[in-house]
Amino acid sequence: MSLQKVLIAGKWRDADATGTFQAENPAAESALPDEYPVSSWSDCRAALDAAAAAYLEMRTMDGEKIATFLEAIADRIESRADELVEMAHLETALPKSPRLADVELPRTTGQLRQAATAARSGSWRNPVIDSENGIASCYGPIGPVAVFGPNNFPFAFGSASGGDFAAAIAAGNPVIAKANSSHPGTTRIFAECAQAAAESIGMPAGTVQLLYRTGHADGEKLVSDPRIAATGYTGSRGAGLKLKAAADAAGKLIYLELSSVNPVVILPGALAERGDALAEEFTGSCLMGAGQFCTNPGLVVLLAGEATESFVADVAKRFSEAPVGTLLSKSVANSLIESLGVLENAGAEVLTGNSAGGGTGYSAANSLLRVSGEKFVADPETFQTEAFGNASLIVVAADLDEACAVIDSLEGNLTGCVYTDTNGSDDAAYDQIEPGLRAKVGRLLNDKMPTGVAVSPAMNHGGPYPATGHAGFTAVGIPAAIPRFAALHCYDNVREHRLPTILRG
Amino acid sequence: MSLQKVLIAGKWRDADATGTFQAENPAAESALPDEYPVSSWSDCRAALDAAAAAYLEMRTMDGEKIATFLEAIADRIESRADELVEMAHLETALPKSPRLADVELPRTTGQLRQAATAARSGSWRNPVIDSENGIASCYGPIGPVAVFGPNNFPFAFGSASGGDFAAAIAAGNPVIAKANSSHPGTTRIFAECAQAAAESIGMPAGTVQLLYRTGHADGEKLVSDPRIAATGYTGSRGAGLKLKAAADAAGKLIYLELSSVNPVVILPGALAERGDALAEEFTGSCLMGAGQFCTNPGLVVLLAGEATESFVADVAKRFSEAPVGTLLSKSVANSLIESLGVLENAGAEVLTGNSAGGGTGYSAANSLLRVSGEKFVADPETFQTEAFGNASLIVVAADLDEACAVIDSLEGNLTGCVYTDTNGSDDAAYDQIEPGLRAKVGRLLNDKMPTGVAVSPAMNHGGPYPATGHAGFTAVGIPAAIPRFAALHCYDNVREHRLPTILRG
Repeated sequence: MSLQKVLIAGKWRDADATGTFQAENPAAESALPDEYPVSSWSDCRAALDAAAAAYLEMRTMDGEKIATFLEAIADRIESRADELVEMAHLETALPKSPRLADVELPRTTGQLRQAATAARSGSWRNPVIDSENGIASCYGPIGPVAVFGPNNFPFAFGSASGGDFAAAIAAGNPVIAKANSSHPGTTRIFAECAQAAAESIGMPAGTVQLLYRTGHADGEKLVSDPRIAATGYTGSRGAGLKLKAAADAAGKLIYLELSSVNPVVILPGALAERGDALAEEFTGSCLMGAGQFCTNPGLVVLLAGEATESFVADVAKRFSEAPVGTLLSKSVANSLIESLGVLENAGAEVLTGNSAGGGTGYSAANSLLRVSGEKFVADPETFQTEAFGNASLIVVAADLDEACAVIDSLEGNLTGCVYTDTNGSDDAAYDQIEPGLRAKVGRLLNDKMPTGVAVSPAMNHGGPYPATGHAGFTAVGIPAAIPRFAALHCYDNVREHRLPTILRG
Repeated sequence: MSLQKVLIAGKWRDADATGTFQAENPAAESALPDEYPVSSWSDCRAALDAAAAAYLEMRTMDGEKIATFLEAIADRIESRADELVEMAHLETALPKSPRLADVELPRTTGQLRQAATAARSGSWRNPVIDSENGIASCYGPIGPVAVFGPNNFPFAFGSASGGDFAAAIAAGNPVIAKANSSHPGTTRIFAECAQAAAESIGMPAGTVQLLYRTGHADGEKLVSDPRIAATGYTGSRGAGLKLKAAADAAGKLIYLELSSVNPVVILPGALAERGDALAEEFTGSCLMGAGQFCTNPGLVVLLAGEATESFVADVAKRFSEAPVGTLLSKSVANSLIESLGVLENAGAEVLTGNSAGGGTGYSAANSLLRVSGEKFVADPETFQTEAFGNASLIVVAADLDEACAVIDSLEGNLTGCVYTDTNGSDDAAYDQIEPGLRAKVGRLLNDKMPTGVAVSPAMNHGGPYPATGHAGFTAVGIPAAIPRFAALHCYDNVREHRLPTILRG
């Protein structure tokens, strides 16, 4: 196959490439045929110019037109659903059904349509009118947004289809999408849907643009460029922190989702009441999709005791017997083994797994490790190493105080969960655990694994650093996710007919 | 006088000082008698520990108690109003009346009481309840907040009394106040009010703490410390950017207000219709308080023509004839003269002023400079140098396109204003100017100088970088200013009786 074209200023055109790459089929451990360009800075610059030009039109555009655009994208995605599912399956090894076709695709189009509804109604704009003082304010667009999507949700977090994309467009901003290198073909089809939709309703040429990859230095230059207003990034902590440093130094906003071990505390009453069911629930949540969820339960805190020993043995057995899933890429597999090695070297005991292979293509054995609360709090930084994939670390605390110390030693996380029994015997312990855990996480759960992330206006898919870069915002949930890509626009003594419609009396 | 004590962990105690300093009376150009300590890191560490301990209590505290605390502070401030006005006048040379006693003090207590109302009602918490999915979310406290107040509003932006302080406390966070070195005595009295209020209603010992000054490195260490959740900083761009770099590198939130030239565009119809009145209005706004407002109109854009020549000549005459105010400090005076020199060296013509002295104590002549639009856009960075004080730069653009180019070349600003006539002859020009100006500022005004900042829920005292660090937030306006110091707390499947009251069905 020939080299794929980038989408710049409304045209699919040859990249000014400094190199090429191919995606891999992780199940076959083999390169897929399409070649994609690594763009030079001149591609970035052209995209930035076009985005800046598009913003000049979009910043005064009616919400109705933006809504129509978002809906047209959703329609086109549905019309190419089979192709998207096929391509994403090839590039990520995620199951076609139900995962890609029946869960992630409808979730993605649903998000786009919710964003359309928000754009149309202005529900994200938070209008505040102070008639007495003649002052009014609302959120407005902020400018071109760069979106870097992650490897693990090629649709719902995709850079030309997912939550950041939908939120940025809904607020009236052009998007420069940087494809995740593990699924460039999937991202290309989404960008084709967006471009076709843009043309059909007359959006400006640079509304949605696509680059597949840039050099690291050019990525940092992109997020700190004067023409960029904000960046949305979901991915590895290392790469994310480099982009953050560049954006911060230039005073540019960057929203990051970097890492999370998602602590789950199971209190003794719950374990006594329904230990078997919890072992099944935890195993299912942790190994689903080979554990490749941002909210995968990677840390389970238990209190020492016989029931805990039985639970741990039960889970270890389930892990060792469960089928081993295919990982998203070679680098995910390598990184998982590397992280498990870090945990083991620090003193965690391997109960099962911690070996490469065992499944189809890139894979690693389902891995369960164990460490005492005492060891954990002695080196919390190391024991919080995120082992992204089908793995979890059990922390057995000597008592409730030690469990609280484990929680207090954590960095920020997306989620935290406490299981308690139904007759109240765990309630005092809950009250002791909760405030510390609450302070560390964006979403606090009871009696429920964190892997399901409902697209709800009440959702917070966010949390304190380093889970994200700002604990006040969510990346999932419409309209709540939209103001990340908005500026607060105040109008003081501005004549009525010049106000945005939403602020007129 | 003996060395003043710092407030740490609920006690006024001797600082572990690395040096001392005195405030100056800017009107007398002489040191005031009190000596204040420069704190070592051990003071910072003790304050951080106490703040962290206070947060453990405050994070689950009822809004009613926090409201009572804020109201008690406001009451105590009122009971010491004369003393505060006297001290602030000595330390800043700002007029006692109306400025300090009749404007800024009531504004400050008003803000505290508005914050109390918000804490009591939870109006800042934005509760969202999704009963169908069993998910609910609201804002909650974030943790200890460091507040660095500016020199120019010793009350309303004071680190132990002002907007950031009130907002941080309202959300349930302890505050470590870093006094502005130009008015340590004023800040001390406010901290005494806060501490007395805290004791009277049983707030934890580290709820409000006061350090007068630290070394630069310790300041950077403070804002990036693990025990700190966020920082509010209003002050010079240079010092602010150093704190920002330190906070950013540690993943800590920092809200900054750094600089703003507050462009004012006066269109030809307005000039023809009411040029004299505008000259008076502009002169009054620019020279009020010796121009030491964050929203001082420091840049006026006009279109070339006879009316503009008359206006400029009129304003220059008014500037040269108006009384010269006293500046807040020697460093403000030096910095003003230095900045005017930068503008002059870059090619701006001095119409009047640009010389030190002329008023009582630290002062500089009322200064009006002029540059062409062509020169401005050739070196916008230099011509945007903020000359903080009684000074402004007139930019005469050849035509409307050039005026738009001037606006497009600006950095982010707190405010932007357009004056138009009342019969519509400026409307087409307004429509051309507005979108570009809108994108650059937090608050857009019509026919009104920007120096008045109403404490309104619709206010945005904020704007794109470098006016502030995040264009989505305001530093003035309750409850809007509060969520800067809040985390988004989501509850998923959490049992009803464990939810914050505001999220119960």
